[in-house]
This record gives sequence, structure tokens and C-alpha cells, in this order.
Amino acid sequence: MRAEAPCLWSAHLARLNRGAERLGIPSPDPALLRAETDALLIGVETGVLRITLTRGPGGRGYRPPPRPEPTRILALYPAAPDPGRWRAQGANLTLCRAVLGTNPLLAGIKHLNRLEQVLARAEWDDPEIIDGVMTDSQGRVTCGTMSNLFLCGDNGIETPAVDRCGVAGTVRALVLRHAAALGIPAREADIPLATLARARGLFLTNALLGPLPVARVGPHRFDPRAVPAELLERVRDAAFQPEIKS
Amino acid sequence: MRAEAPCLWSAHLARLNRGAERLGIPSPDPALLRAETDALLIGVETGVLRITLTRGPGGRGYRPPPRPEPTRILALYPAAPDPGRWRAQGANLTLCRAVLGTNPLLAGIKHLNRLEQVLARAEWDDPEIIDGVMTDSQGRVTCGTMSNLFLCGDNGIETPAVDRCGVAGTVRALVLRHAAALGIPAREADIPLATLARARGLFLTNALLGPLPVARVGPHRFDPRAVPAELLERVRDAAFQPEIKS
Repeated sequence: MRAEAPCLWSAHLARLNRGAERLGIPSPDPALLRAETDALLIGVETGVLRITLTRGPGGRGYRPPPRPEPTRILALYPAAPDPGRWRAQGANLTLCRAVLGTNPLLAGIKHLNRLEQVLARAEWDDPEIIDGVMTDSQGRVTCGTMSNLFLCGDNGIETPAVDRCGVAGTVRALVLRHAAALGIPAREADIPLATLARARGLFLTNALLGPLPVARVGPHRFDPRAVPAELLERVRDAAFQPEIKS
Repeated sequence: MRAEAPCLWSAHLARLNRGAERLGIPSPDPALLRAETDALLIGVETGVLRITLTRGPGGRGYRPPPRPEPTRILALYPAAPDPGRWRAQGANLTLCRAVLGTNPLLAGIKHLNRLEQVLARAEWDDPEIIDGVMTDSQGRVTCGTMSNLFLCGDNGIETPAVDRCGVAGTVRALVLRHAAALGIPAREADIPLATLARARGLFLTNALLGPLPVARVGPHRFDPRAVPAELLERVRDAAFQPEIKS
């Protein structure tokens, strides 16, 4: 965020609401949530805002309360380190041993059941590695622990589908939209690890890092020049545009 | 529990420790945990004790803290309703639409990523239905939302394996042990839904309900007399035996 206004507010709010609906949690009043956000951001130049919605208090056991009274948690963190160096050189990723279970019931949602990502993120300690690529239980490339992935080749770009696992990220959606506007063929696909290994170029997306070219995933190297530069620039501009209240 | 002492303490503690180890969370000091439990149970005749272990405070993002300082939460609830009626008639279950994703990484552990169970438990409201049967994403019968299942036939008993999803329950383990002692063949298996539907008898296990014969799963009916009565009696005795501190 910048200038006391959150970036991609509408997109994040829409995703929050879609997830809440699928999980049977009443969505927060958008005006109230924005007012709470604006109050938290007074005097804040840069930072990371995390909004967590829970189902709220309930009884023992798995049964959700018949009329949930959700809890909203707004937390402000220091800005993430600037990824400028990775933008120039390409980021280094590792390949995680931890895999993702698949369940269409939860696929695409940014829910809080993230044990798989926590176990995957515990696999490396090297600060030069900024994320780890995860495959699903059938060996398909799915995402990073905190990012989405786009393969680049002569025929356009491809990203893993998020209908069995993974998160439908806000910057991922920007890539698909801006690729269409630029006439770059872009599609969601099933991507075996072997296909990732053979890709010429690779980039990742994340709401805090924006889009970043990837130089390496474990032993596999990628050519940052194979990543469409204008697309990344447009997506970055769109991702970090503060969204002033309308 | 009864007489101010928890039931199956050693088994629950062992499972807590196995889960913590697999998730990279330091296990609590067993003497400290027992002392905290005993302090909570002073003057308590019956009730439900839930012990929750978290990884403790950490930073933003999925990276676990390098030296976690886990949090222990001990919560005491009123006793669950007596399942005596179901013991006589057999319990009614439903068949859930929500399925379980499979991941050997998390299989068998009683972890807190239970969104699938919460969504499954939201599928019915009828107080005459005490649990719902869940299949995994490949259609294999796995468990109830809060119980394990045992099919009974002329060749002994069968229960779903818990190496891809499910929870290695404490009462489930008692059934396997006591079946062996009684000479009843018992095995873990892959169980398609069609096999469940054809079973003569069915029972469930849960640490609060003990073992209970099942009369019905959706449209499928089971004969409570096909459930080995002596096995259930032995398991029930063992499951509700207060475990005085040694």
C-alpha cells in the first residue's frame, strides 16, 4: 500500500467474500471493513495489511454455529523487503518435498488450513531462496508456498489451474487479464513437473512481491529474458496502485 | 473421565506427541501437562477435556519460528450426552457430500486443519443423526466427521486405513488390540463405498461416545446383531477407565 490506501482493495475484498460464501461464513459489511482499514492506515506510508475473517465463537466440535457471528482481525505489519534485486536477477526457488492434497471443496480459496504450506516452508532456511514450488499429490505443479507460477514459452504463458488445490491469487488474475489485453495467449492447465523443468521462462506472482521472474527452481534454470517484460511491468503497476475510497 | 482422572491419558498423550513430532512442534513436558490437567480436574466428576497444542507465536507468513515456544490450551466442557439409546438401537449416520483430500503428510494426525469436517458437519441438522460418513477424493470410505468406522462380517472386522487421510483414533486402536485378544480377525483396508453398503454390521468409535453400533448410513441399513458384542463391551470398559497418575 502507499498514500494511506490499500492496493487491490476491490480484488481482495471480492476474494474474501467468495471464500466466505463457500465456507458458509457471513461476509463483513464492505463499508465497515473499509472504514476499519482506513482508520488503521492513518499516517501509514507503506506496510502489509492482513485481514482475517473467522467463523467466530462456537461450541465444542465441528458443528458450525447456526448463526455465526464472524470475527474480523485487521493486522498491520512492516513492509516486506523490496524485491528489486530479484526483479533484475530472477528469483531462486526450491522444490518442496511436501505436497498438496487435492480437494475441489477448498480449491482456490485463501482459507486458513495451511499446514501443508507451513511444513513446506520449514524445508529451507537459505535467505537467497524466496519460495518453494509445491506439487499436488498427483505430481502436478501447483504453486509456490506463497505465490502462483507462470510458465513462458513461444506459445504464450501457462499457469496451473486452481480447481483442485491452490489459491486464485489477486495478482494471478491481473496477469491473466493483462495478458489478454496485450494479445499474449494465456491459459490455465495441468502442468506436470517435467513440463515446468522444460519451460524456457518462469515467473511468480504474489500480492506483496508483485510479479517476479524466476531464475531457478532447484536444479532447473530459467531464462529471465523469456518472460514478457511489458506484461510484468503492467501487472506490477496495477498491483501496487493504491485504491482510494470511491 | 470419572473420579477426577482422565480416560486413556497415555494413549492421548502418545498421539499428541506423535502429531507434534510430525508437525515439528516441540512436545510438552508430560509431567507438567499432567499436573495442569489434574489441577483443572479437581472436583470434576464427569466432563470433556480438550488439550490443544499450537506452534506458539510466530511472524507473518508460513515460515515456522526457528525455536517454537508452543502454547498449551486445556479446556474443560460439560460431559457429552450419554449415548445409551444409540448403544441399544444403533446410531443413525448420514453420508456426507463433502469429501476428504488425501495427503500422507497429514494423515493419521489429529491436527487442527479441519475445514473439511466443519463443512461436512454443516450438511445436516437432524439431532437423530449423530455423525456423517466421509469418503476421500477417490471415493474410499474414510471415517465419520468425528469417528472411525468398522465393518463387520463373517470374516471379522475391517476399518479404513489412515495413511492417506483420517485420524488414528485412540478408541480405534483399542478395537484393533482387543479384537486380536479375542481372536477376531481385524484388518485395515481400502474400503469403497459399495463395500460399506454391503456390510452386514457396522460400528463407530469416538473417545467420547466409545464404540457404538450403527443402524443406518443414509439409505443403507446394518444389523446391530452383526457387531461383536463382547468386543464392544471390552473396548467400552477400556475406553472409560480413569487413568490415575502412576
